[in-house]
Amino acid sequence: MSDKKKVRIGLVGRGLMGRMHANAYTHISTIFPDLEYQPVLQAIASRNEEKGKEFADTWGFQSYENDWRKMIERDDIDAIDICAPNNMHAEIAIAAAKAGKMVLSEKPLSHEIGQAKEMLDAITEAGVPNTVWYNYRRMPAVTLAKNIVDSGRLGQIFHYRANFLQDWTISPDLPQGGEAAWRLDVDAAGSGVTGDLLAHCIDTAIWLNGGIEDVSAVTKTFIKERLHQETGKVQPVGIDDASIFHCHFKNGSLGLFEATRYARGHKALYTFEINGEHASIRWDLHDMNWLEYFDHRDDAEVRGWRKIHVSDGDQPYMDRWWIPGTSLGYEHSFIHQAADFFKGLENGGKRCAPTIEDAYETEKVCHAVLESAKSRSWKTV
Amino acid sequence: MSDKKKVRIGLVGRGLMGRMHANAYTHISTIFPDLEYQPVLQAIASRNEEKGKEFADTWGFQSYENDWRKMIERDDIDAIDICAPNNMHAEIAIAAAKAGKMVLSEKPLSHEIGQAKEMLDAITEAGVPNTVWYNYRRMPAVTLAKNIVDSGRLGQIFHYRANFLQDWTISPDLPQGGEAAWRLDVDAAGSGVTGDLLAHCIDTAIWLNGGIEDVSAVTKTFIKERLHQETGKVQPVGIDDASIFHCHFKNGSLGLFEATRYARGHKALYTFEINGEHASIRWDLHDMNWLEYFDHRDDAEVRGWRKIHVSDGDQPYMDRWWIPGTSLGYEHSFIHQAADFFKGLENGGKRCAPTIEDAYETEKVCHAVLESAKSRSWKTV
Amino acid sequence: MSDKKKVRIGLVGRGLMGRMHANAYTHISTIFPDLEYQPVLQAIASRNEEKGKEFADTWGFQSYENDWRKMIERDDIDAIDICAPNNMHAEIAIAAAKAGKMVLSEKPLSHEIGQAKEMLDAITEAGVPNTVWYNYRRMPAVTLAKNIVDSGRLGQIFHYRANFLQDWTISPDLPQGGEAAWRLDVDAAGSGVTGDLLAHCIDTAIWLNGGIEDVSAVTKTFIKERLHQETGKVQPVGIDDASIFHCHFKNGSLGLFEATRYARGHKALYTFEINGEHASIRWDLHDMNWLEYFDHRDDAEVRGWRKIHVSDGDQPYMDRWWIPGTSLGYEHSFIHQAADFFKGLENGGKRCAPTIEDAYETEKVCHAVLESAKSRSWKTV
Amino acid sequence: MSDKKKVRIGLVGRGLMGRMHANAYTHISTIFPDLEYQPVLQAIASRNEEKGKEFADTWGFQSYENDWRKMIERDDIDAIDICAPNNMHAEIAIAAAKAGKMVLSEKPLSHEIGQAKEMLDAITEAGVPNTVWYNYRRMPAVTLAKNIVDSGRLGQIFHYRANFLQDWTISPDLPQGGEAAWRLDVDAAGSGVTGDLLAHCIDTAIWLNGGIEDVSAVTKTFIKERLHQETGKVQPVGIDDASIFHCHFKNGSLGLFEATRYARGHKALYTFEINGEHASIRWDLHDMNWLEYFDHRDDAEVRGWRKIHVSDGDQPYMDRWWIPGTSLGYEHSFIHQAADFFKGLENGGKRCAPTIEDAYETEKVCHAVLESAKSRSWKTV
Repeated sequence: MSDKKKVRIGLVGRGLMGRMHANAYTHISTIFPDLEYQPVLQAIASRNEEKGKEFADTWGFQSYENDWRKMIERDDIDAIDICAPNNMHAEIAIAAAKAGKMVLSEKPLSHEIGQAKEMLDAITEAGVPNTVWYNYRRMPAVTLAKNIVDSGRLGQIFHYRANFLQDWTISPDLPQGGEAAWRLDVDAAGSGVTGDLLAHCIDTAIWLNGGIEDVSAVTKTFIKERLHQETGKVQPVGIDDASIFHCHFKNGSLGLFEATRYARGHKALYTFEINGEHASIRWDLHDMNWLEYFDHRDDAEVRGWRKIHVSDGDQPYMDRWWIPGTSLGYEHSFIHQAADFFKGLENGGKRCAPTIEDAYETEKVCHAVLESAKSRSWKTV
Repeated sequence: MSDKKKVRIGLVGRGLMGRMHANAYTHISTIFPDLEYQPVLQAIASRNEEKGKEFADTWGFQSYENDWRKMIERDDIDAIDICAPNNMHAEIAIAAAKAGKMVLSEKPLSHEIGQAKEMLDAITEAGVPNTVWYNYRRMPAVTLAKNIVDSGRLGQIFHYRANFLQDWTISPDLPQGGEAAWRLDVDAAGSGVTGDLLAHCIDTAIWLNGGIEDVSAVTKTFIKERLHQETGKVQPVGIDDASIFHCHFKNGSLGLFEATRYARGHKALYTFEINGEHASIRWDLHDMNWLEYFDHRDDAEVRGWRKIHVSDGDQPYMDRWWIPGTSLGYEHSFIHQAADFFKGLENGGKRCAPTIEDAYETEKVCHAVLESAKSRSWKTV
Repeated sequence: MSDKKKVRIGLVGRGLMGRMHANAYTHISTIFPDLEYQPVLQAIASRNEEKGKEFADTWGFQSYENDWRKMIERDDIDAIDICAPNNMHAEIAIAAAKAGKMVLSEKPLSHEIGQAKEMLDAITEAGVPNTVWYNYRRMPAVTLAKNIVDSGRLGQIFHYRANFLQDWTISPDLPQGGEAAWRLDVDAAGSGVTGDLLAHCIDTAIWLNGGIEDVSAVTKTFIKERLHQETGKVQPVGIDDASIFHCHFKNGSLGLFEATRYARGHKALYTFEINGEHASIRWDLHDMNWLEYFDHRDDAEVRGWRKIHVSDGDQPYMDRWWIPGTSLGYEHSFIHQAADFFKGLENGGKRCAPTIEDAYETEKVCHAVLESAKSRSWKTV
Repeated sequence: MSDKKKVRIGLVGRGLMGRMHANAYTHISTIFPDLEYQPVLQAIASRNEEKGKEFADTWGFQSYENDWRKMIERDDIDAIDICAPNNMHAEIAIAAAKAGKMVLSEKPLSHEIGQAKEMLDAITEAGVPNTVWYNYRRMPAVTLAKNIVDSGRLGQIFHYRANFLQDWTISPDLPQGGEAAWRLDVDAAGSGVTGDLLAHCIDTAIWLNGGIEDVSAVTKTFIKERLHQETGKVQPVGIDDASIFHCHFKNGSLGLFEATRYARGHKALYTFEINGEHASIRWDLHDMNWLEYFDHRDDAEVRGWRKIHVSDGDQPYMDRWWIPGTSLGYEHSFIHQAADFFKGLENGGKRCAPTIEDAYETEKVCHAVLESAKSRSWKTV
């Protein structure tokens, strides 16, 4: 790969998403060897020196920093990939953009809408290539859904519904805060399922069905107090455990969204369904390689929901992998997004959807959801 | 069956539900021969004499009336079964109750909440046995769901979600009004999917999960004008084509409901799911003989959603039918409700849930949904 | 129904199938009122007088006989419907045919191939209308499968596979013989799952895919001894608990069949699948209202197995019932077969498939299967 | 990884399996960093120099050889991984074993049973660590199935059934022979679906249910002639397009197996089901992250097939990957097998199931299947 253009990556964070992104980069040279740009795992930043160095060693990063600021100062780094908790995204991204680095950020943009706007403005002003890791777009079946929508097969859209159901926080013994449980700490996460799970549903929805006009929401915190791991005290829980809203899309369709971590039996059930005049599609993360499609124009005798195993070579991304009938997994959506990011850099390109602008649209919907729930009234996005 | 007590039925209406109820009565003597009370198909009332008489002949009714009022005047009729369009339910029921007849009414109670209250009051005052045909409670799998809920297996309830999706009114060429399309005429139906489909979801929900406190709804009429079959003119459509709401249940759980006739691919997809602290259940009308159950207390190694084929002799109603593994159909829910009604009369009993009181609770929720949608605000039930 | 031609039925047997057939007849006048011929429940024969009379009372039979021979002697009976144990079918059928009665017989024809041939000959010679209750053909989804096959959509057929899995005899404590357990007694049943379950699979297969040339089979009796209810002694078990065979169809396709009562978790899982050059279909009794269809000629982008809910008015038999999206049950297949039998009598017709000839074809395959298993060699049918 | 013991890999073949194995090795250091042994991609052998070098470059192999014999002669190579066509496996493996190299071979062992035995003998005599890539054992859900079987939850086993259905060779225009189509050339492949697909089913079956005693099989070649890519002539097709057999397992259970490339609609549907006295399990490659389990000992009220999403951290291999509810893909089974191979080397270990001995057992069953089909008789394994 000596004649390839190198993008030297500085990764911030070594949690689940840190591992996931590192894993994605390792596949670019082997699965997408034809890309003009190729990542180099230049540095990893983590406050915990021992674990940070271990991570660097395992994943083949060439250096370690104990402070992400140092990484941004380095000349030998082209892109900052942000996998820190939500409340750190904006600060890091803004600094990176100002230093002229490309920005790849985990979602959501921020724990707070004002700061998200600052992040948007800083990146826009800097004009640096950027993307936000709303990875579900790159599941082959979801990309196929997008292709089907864009083909016009569905006709006028009437309904969009999505939910993201989990059950991992039902136990009252689960603490909040700290490395493993920052998602339950409102200061670190900004919100509960709204920013964590609904944000994914909203990003996909806007991509597939266009903008959202207004929302009416309800949220709920089922368990009111949890031990905080950093203070050692039982403290009020500030996050939303469940978040539900209905909405009007700009195209005239009705939307219905729900996310919760209290749906016993569902580990990570992200589903969506779109009902159009002529045809409908639906998808389910637990069966991520399948897309279901119904077309009313089929002969009545044999009309039914089609269950499409998205694994043929002519289906999205599948020419890169193995053979028809074999499944891909969760991690592949990240690999595809990384590949698309590097592909986007070719010919001077600077955009890889979802860009910071796209992600800010989702952020505004999330904000409206939380405001609507608080005020018990409809909110315009 | 000579020593059985006879309940002489007067049926109003010979549409789909008229046929369905007549079919239900014909199974009582053969499938539930041990019941003390047995129906007699005494009379059918229909404005169309030719079709009314043909119906009587086909189903074995002993007489025909061209006006339901005449039937109520007859001494040889014990019970009035109402299968007329929604806007006639209350008037007929009130007259029947005042005449001391038992009342079996199709749902909803009325096209209008005030009249529904009058119907409730009249029946309550008359003290006559009564039931409203929210038939889904009598699907064996739904009754099993009730048994599971009552057993306490689920623990504290967090979520209840239901939807009822159809696609039969998408064509703009479909007319409104008249015999076949009165469900699209707001004057006859009172509302669109709210009273027709959501009402079923709400009845089941209250039965399984208790009362609803407040609702926030949105409705939509996708096709604004349709030819009216009675006037011959294109007229505004007054019904709701889609109706969505979220709510708080009195037990602290969140509810989410949706009904539409614009969900391409779904003929009659009524589903519900309940998520509890320990266990969850879900059901789907298109697969009506199955109930799915997840119990977190199962050994982790083999924990998963259980798909229960509700067809064993020890499962609800199944001791009456055939052999394990064989399916029942839609009509059986009506047969079971009729059987339960007659069973309820034994020992001087007058109640067969859902009673008029139960149905009025559902009616209030439907009313709140429509009011909430109109005012774009939360409504207390 | 006064101007209808009456077919006075004499039913032999009051077990599961006796009830099922009686139930079927009660639906003819209400669901198929346009048929020229209508059944009359004239007599029921049963050796147990008390239960026989109770059955007659419940189902509305006009008379009772304690011996089926007396019923055959009666002039006021037009048709004999045979629901006795397998080893009595032929004797009754032959007597009925000789007396000029129509014959409706439960399957299989006999416990013994020679006697089955005598039954075939007697009925053929008598020239009486006849049918054998291989009811699965009349499941709407199975009839739809037949229509699809006949339409040529599948192209050349490569594979036919079917299985019928149950689990109700796994317990060694289950006895053999007597009223409830005659299916485990080789003298009464003739064979185990071969005649009971495989026979159904074979009948459907021949109907859908044509004749079978030769078979290679294996059978197994897992539990070797059981208490016999009539002798009170533990006796060897003579039936096959499981029966498996592969075969060549005359059309060049390969067949694969399996039946067992030792498949834990399956109450009555009858499935079949046909793979053709262009398209495939599959069906499952546990989900009897669905048919799955795959057509390779679909656009590659949206190609997948279609899940067809066979409940629209233009699908087989469904114009007779309720509304799209609502399910039928097991009993409806018998109702449909009864209706088709009476329909078949119009215009002097005498045939309602499967006729005795059709059933004898299945009987020959069953016989070849048992012979093949015994001799551990291929057998020509 | 400087202090890790290195296993220098020489890979033969750069087709689908070559890519798959290379991909597996690249994950060892990142996902299994705790293993004592780590692979080094030392050399790739391929007859096509341009493509071989490109492959080496893409996957990071340090050198290229145009003849596998040269690779075996090299001292700097510890293990030979064989991904060449079937008829080359044995020759390469024998040479590698004699040279003292570890042997990792694709399945089946050979196109011919005698040569397979020579391969077994050579490796046994050499005493080198070895494994055969029957990768399906390492699907987490399949490993879970093994754990469940070993736990004794199922009780006495009655039935094992498996099939492997594909549809990619239905077109008569598909050629045989050459790089892309050697699987259709009997000289290169040895057999058709028997060695390609059934071999996988048999390996899993023996692992889960023990040895097979005797088999009765039928095979079929639907398309008799195809253009041969190497000769340019239309030649007879020597492979079996479909292969079906039933068998006795040594534990007294009955087995039923089928593989075909003519099952329209199935890309790679490998399924198996085991029915035991108390419980049953089933699995399906198209839904590879799920395992279904039925336990008759569950409370009757809530007894049903459990659908287990095998993605929790305490399920096989899943502690290595992401978060509960997220799926793995096909390639992960190879990664797991590679990891298990290296793990097996610790403490002087030389075995990683399936070993050459295990694979030879499968080979003998495949041989008996082909012999049985040819002779139309039962064959002892």
